[in-house]
Amino acid sequence: MAGNKTVGIGLVGAGFMGRCHANAFRSVSGLFDTGVEPVAEMLADASAAIAASNAQALGFARSTGDWHELCRDPRVDIVAVTAPNALHEPVVMEAITAGKTVYCEKPLSVTARSAERMTLAAEAAGTLTLVGFNFLRNPMIRLAKDIIDAGEIGDIAGFRGRHAENYMCDPDAPHSFRTHPDGGGAVADIGSHIISMARYLLGPIVEVNAKCKTIHKTRPLHAGSSERSPVEVDDMTHSLIRFANGTRGSVEANWAAFGRTMDLSFEVTGTKGAIAFTQERMNELLVVKAGAISGREGFVKIEAGPAHPPYGNFCPAPGHHLGFNDLKVIEVAELLAAWNGGAPCMPDFREALEVQRTVEAMQNSSRSNGPVTL
Amino acid sequence: MAGNKTVGIGLVGAGFMGRCHANAFRSVSGLFDTGVEPVAEMLADASAAIAASNAQALGFARSTGDWHELCRDPRVDIVAVTAPNALHEPVVMEAITAGKTVYCEKPLSVTARSAERMTLAAEAAGTLTLVGFNFLRNPMIRLAKDIIDAGEIGDIAGFRGRHAENYMCDPDAPHSFRTHPDGGGAVADIGSHIISMARYLLGPIVEVNAKCKTIHKTRPLHAGSSERSPVEVDDMTHSLIRFANGTRGSVEANWAAFGRTMDLSFEVTGTKGAIAFTQERMNELLVVKAGAISGREGFVKIEAGPAHPPYGNFCPAPGHHLGFNDLKVIEVAELLAAWNGGAPCMPDFREALEVQRTVEAMQNSSRSNGPVTL
Amino acid sequence: MAGNKTVGIGLVGAGFMGRCHANAFRSVSGLFDTGVEPVAEMLADASAAIAASNAQALGFARSTGDWHELCRDPRVDIVAVTAPNALHEPVVMEAITAGKTVYCEKPLSVTARSAERMTLAAEAAGTLTLVGFNFLRNPMIRLAKDIIDAGEIGDIAGFRGRHAENYMCDPDAPHSFRTHPDGGGAVADIGSHIISMARYLLGPIVEVNAKCKTIHKTRPLHAGSSERSPVEVDDMTHSLIRFANGTRGSVEANWAAFGRTMDLSFEVTGTKGAIAFTQERMNELLVVKAGAISGREGFVKIEAGPAHPPYGNFCPAPGHHLGFNDLKVIEVAELLAAWNGGAPCMPDFREALEVQRTVEAMQNSSRSNGPVTL
Amino acid sequence: MAGNKTVGIGLVGAGFMGRCHANAFRSVSGLFDTGVEPVAEMLADASAAIAASNAQALGFARSTGDWHELCRDPRVDIVAVTAPNALHEPVVMEAITAGKTVYCEKPLSVTARSAERMTLAAEAAGTLTLVGFNFLRNPMIRLAKDIIDAGEIGDIAGFRGRHAENYMCDPDAPHSFRTHPDGGGAVADIGSHIISMARYLLGPIVEVNAKCKTIHKTRPLHAGSSERSPVEVDDMTHSLIRFANGTRGSVEANWAAFGRTMDLSFEVTGTKGAIAFTQERMNELLVVKAGAISGREGFVKIEAGPAHPPYGNFCPAPGHHLGFNDLKVIEVAELLAAWNGGAPCMPDFREALEVQRTVEAMQNSSRSNGPVTL
Repeated sequence: MAGNKTVGIGLVGAGFMGRCHANAFRSVSGLFDTGVEPVAEMLADASAAIAASNAQALGFARSTGDWHELCRDPRVDIVAVTAPNALHEPVVMEAITAGKTVYCEKPLSVTARSAERMTLAAEAAGTLTLVGFNFLRNPMIRLAKDIIDAGEIGDIAGFRGRHAENYMCDPDAPHSFRTHPDGGGAVADIGSHIISMARYLLGPIVEVNAKCKTIHKTRPLHAGSSERSPVEVDDMTHSLIRFANGTRGSVEANWAAFGRTMDLSFEVTGTKGAIAFTQERMNELLVVKAGAISGREGFVKIEAGPAHPPYGNFCPAPGHHLGFNDLKVIEVAELLAAWNGGAPCMPDFREALEVQRTVEAMQNSSRSNGPVTL
Repeated sequence: MAGNKTVGIGLVGAGFMGRCHANAFRSVSGLFDTGVEPVAEMLADASAAIAASNAQALGFARSTGDWHELCRDPRVDIVAVTAPNALHEPVVMEAITAGKTVYCEKPLSVTARSAERMTLAAEAAGTLTLVGFNFLRNPMIRLAKDIIDAGEIGDIAGFRGRHAENYMCDPDAPHSFRTHPDGGGAVADIGSHIISMARYLLGPIVEVNAKCKTIHKTRPLHAGSSERSPVEVDDMTHSLIRFANGTRGSVEANWAAFGRTMDLSFEVTGTKGAIAFTQERMNELLVVKAGAISGREGFVKIEAGPAHPPYGNFCPAPGHHLGFNDLKVIEVAELLAAWNGGAPCMPDFREALEVQRTVEAMQNSSRSNGPVTL
Repeated sequence: MAGNKTVGIGLVGAGFMGRCHANAFRSVSGLFDTGVEPVAEMLADASAAIAASNAQALGFARSTGDWHELCRDPRVDIVAVTAPNALHEPVVMEAITAGKTVYCEKPLSVTARSAERMTLAAEAAGTLTLVGFNFLRNPMIRLAKDIIDAGEIGDIAGFRGRHAENYMCDPDAPHSFRTHPDGGGAVADIGSHIISMARYLLGPIVEVNAKCKTIHKTRPLHAGSSERSPVEVDDMTHSLIRFANGTRGSVEANWAAFGRTMDLSFEVTGTKGAIAFTQERMNELLVVKAGAISGREGFVKIEAGPAHPPYGNFCPAPGHHLGFNDLKVIEVAELLAAWNGGAPCMPDFREALEVQRTVEAMQNSSRSNGPVTL
Repeated sequence: MAGNKTVGIGLVGAGFMGRCHANAFRSVSGLFDTGVEPVAEMLADASAAIAASNAQALGFARSTGDWHELCRDPRVDIVAVTAPNALHEPVVMEAITAGKTVYCEKPLSVTARSAERMTLAAEAAGTLTLVGFNFLRNPMIRLAKDIIDAGEIGDIAGFRGRHAENYMCDPDAPHSFRTHPDGGGAVADIGSHIISMARYLLGPIVEVNAKCKTIHKTRPLHAGSSERSPVEVDDMTHSLIRFANGTRGSVEANWAAFGRTMDLSFEVTGTKGAIAFTQERMNELLVVKAGAISGREGFVKIEAGPAHPPYGNFCPAPGHHLGFNDLKVIEVAELLAAWNGGAPCMPDFREALEVQRTVEAMQNSSRSNGPVTL
């Protein structure tokens, strides 16, 4: 670690995800040998005072109330963007222009059109990009992909996916960026996770046929407000999907799913086996394969362990579960390795754009009451 | 039991379901006080010899190779139809004409058009009818309905259902009535179960938007045959659905779901709670409701017991699970009670017709690539 | 079935278990080909009136208020004893004397000394005997035994068993035969189940070291009584055990286990695998074995199906669960087959006596505060 | 964080647990406001070269091949001891003498006698001590304790605990410190975890009655060796236990439990409810309590969330699981807060000594074949 070349990190935003980024950059070198040592150079936030306070709490050397300054800072190599979604495009564009590596939280932007501008700019500039779909970093998800890719469960026939949480169950949960017509709604906010996972496992989705539903028709203007205004985004979306490889299935996005805290789940059915997973038990993967002796067959509950990289970076023994924050560390490790000349990291802007296009295709399908081809 | 008035049972067909019927009629009086005692009068099968052999095995007094004879027999009061699906209409029509009560296995017939003829005939004749969607008889399903109807989980917002089994996973599983274009396919064969359950819990489905998929494009003409012919029915169907009450959701039917033996499952999401169930653990219902103390909330695993009628008819103590065959006994008990002047039993032909129409609407939707209104 | 030779059944007692027996005898011939057809000849109960009423309800031809009469009846071949435990010995002794086959509910008697008298009498008379430890009849338990006996999980090293229910949780649950010093208490009432299962799977238990505990020190004299008297039996017993084959482990019996309706469960650990089971999910067996590919290993959830005899007698397809009452049908089928000249059925009186001795050894060990060798 | 007073950390040992400590000290300030900022001052290891390499990898400023030097270093405030167990006493004694705070991995030492010397020395010196029973830091375990202490499940009647893993299943797993007669064996290595958890939840254990068993009688002298020598420690121990509060129960320690990676589990039964937990699903707690409506009762699956401190330090939303390494961060946060003048942290040396005494009491009980009082 000492003696490594260093890489300067600039963090824009210090909310839930900003803090998660900061901690991942802090932890990564004790767990992964990426060849580079991140240095927490600068934190930008809504004002100089807020930024200073958060920089102190999160261990950043300098702070600013002006993200432009951060993007241009010569000691910042990687700009990590966890600002509100509507700010992603301007911050990212300036970071690209300044020649930085860009690490942006999902969604890439509030609209696919905006995401496309960012993607094209990054590609034109040869920018190294990464978008924070951290659930993909779970060793059990990587195992699922390995099993699929190796043909262990045969040809893939069906996919059934879901991301259901309960954080908008309360009809008095107020409006926020989450309910803004640009980029808001359950399918954009968390549907994007199951879409990205579906694409990671099985490739592009080429057709959707969706129906969005708003369960709570109005919400308070802000927390505690007695004034309410209509909700224009979905609380719940169900969609039929078709993959480029011919697999068919469905996905659901639901942020008003009473009782569900993190049902990011799927079942992949192949002609010779199947895989089932839920993030509610993120250290387990259920796998069944053809070939078992009659009367002995069934789903195997595989528990995460050193046989599932990069679990071993966290612990040399099985049974010691990874947590959510560990996934972010893995993500950051892959980013740093790529920055240091390794393989490009995924999902890049292009992939995140495709996810966003899929989200919008679902929204369009719901409006037009028919299938939309991508 | 002795001293009760008797009711003569005529059974047409003695396969998987015929045997299940016979055993239910045999067991019912020891478990339920229906006021009538069933007498196994006559069994009809494909030939006189087969019928005689099965009658002996299943305890029927008389047998016949001609179901017409059974339908006209004066000592037969209830005609139980477990013959191949294509025979349902002629047998049922004759039983109706003869003034019998008709207890028909699902599906009611091979097409909705045929099912409609049967329904209209039964209604015109005032026939007491019952169709064997036995999964509805599970006390835990009745509990789910009670919870929903009492408003315990608030207004219903979403439904996610599935019936997945693995019995057609094998690409060499041969053609049979199951793959016949009339009445065959996964959505007709088992999708009907999850549709009937959805309707039981939440009422009519008024719109579907489905996609059927044939996974194994050809199958052997018959078991062991090297000659194969194309499969014209679905192995897997996903559908968006809308209920009359506005609830939206999805269902999947899949008979090639590797690893799944009986995933007849659903999650009903309300504004104040949710219910989850799978037939793989048919003695459990998961329920979460608003109002728990913060930090103590979550899904409750309710286990079947005497508090869930008619569990108590089988056992006075909780923890002694019901099995599949017990569901058939409950069904038969309700039939006998209705025959004896009690409340009409459900699902009757009309309800089964609606299920079948929903199945066909899904098939039509898949063909037309768009939503179909019912 | 018709044409079979018949066997006359006399049932003594018509409570929870009497009814369960009656239904099993009624159902068995539709499900099993035992070569004989049981005929419900006579039911004996506490008075002639009660017996007559129960005989009618359960389909017995004749009834009596005097079990002596039943034991001597020439048309009764098998005496099924479900009377209160304290009556087991006199009824059974008379049935043995009369040359009947004896089918007795567990426990065999209220004390091991009594059970020994019964066993010696039966052995001297060459009586065919069966004791109703019905949980052993579960196809998944038979599978567990097959796996162990075939060496699939290597040499057996450890056993951890439990039978926990909640039916005596309530401190106001009154005294009854269950709390009588002779034959009462949790370890006698339900501990006997896990002991019989342990013996079935792994053979004789030769040493115990137990501690009994009375949680509720007094109970009402009878339901609703305000008068209370001390409880002299255990609510909960934990014991170390050693099997003749060297396996060590522990068992718990607990009838005041809040939240547990039927945790009759065990884990058998071998040098090359392990098996886990709970009656709460009686159609599942968890099995792990050596030899899996690294990173793919884990417990397999095996679901009951036709590959697990005699499941196929109930249903030709997997996924259609058996219930508690089905286990009694299997038990009765084995009894009838043995009566008809087949292999002797187990557990016979001798085996039930050994279970009872093990129970008493635990009680003695608790009193003496040290190990007891059997 | 910046501006905080700093605390110098000296780490002795850099294996599995040393690395875990290092990462926890690195991460803690981004997640907890302890008022102090740890500085990775010095790392000691088996040789200067190894120490230098590990110091670089783990971000320590200085290194040494001589732990005496570390203990005496003026800039080291806290000595974290993750050296082999046999070294705990000398390192800790010197650290105490030098006036350091001591943070020692479990077990405190190889024998209770040694642990007692360490404890007396620390108490005489007024040393702040902490022993690394990190599983106690799980918010769900804290929740369990809160529920018990608040009387939510009534008086406690029974405890059933286990720590089962599979890391010594292989008969060719070689000898190591784990199998050394001093401090080795399953009950010492992992039994200590379930004992510490039992004590945390229910208080002192005052009597044990145990049986230790060696499953694999010989093991290779070292990895790959063809020479084998006898194993003198247990692979599996079962024990009856009695708590000072009268609760009775059992514990099992088993490091040859095929298929189990981390079954650190318990069920606490009270007169008005029960709690069940397994570390295999460390973000869930199952709780059942009296007072539910009949037919709606059962175990609630509570998922970790911000209502369960200090979960909220890691994530503001529920459903984002904690992992094993997060537990170590919580432990370190409590240590730093105590160092900074907060409440003393637990388990201190005294508590760890009691755990070790309980372990040895089990070993003694097994040898003497009878109960041992503590």
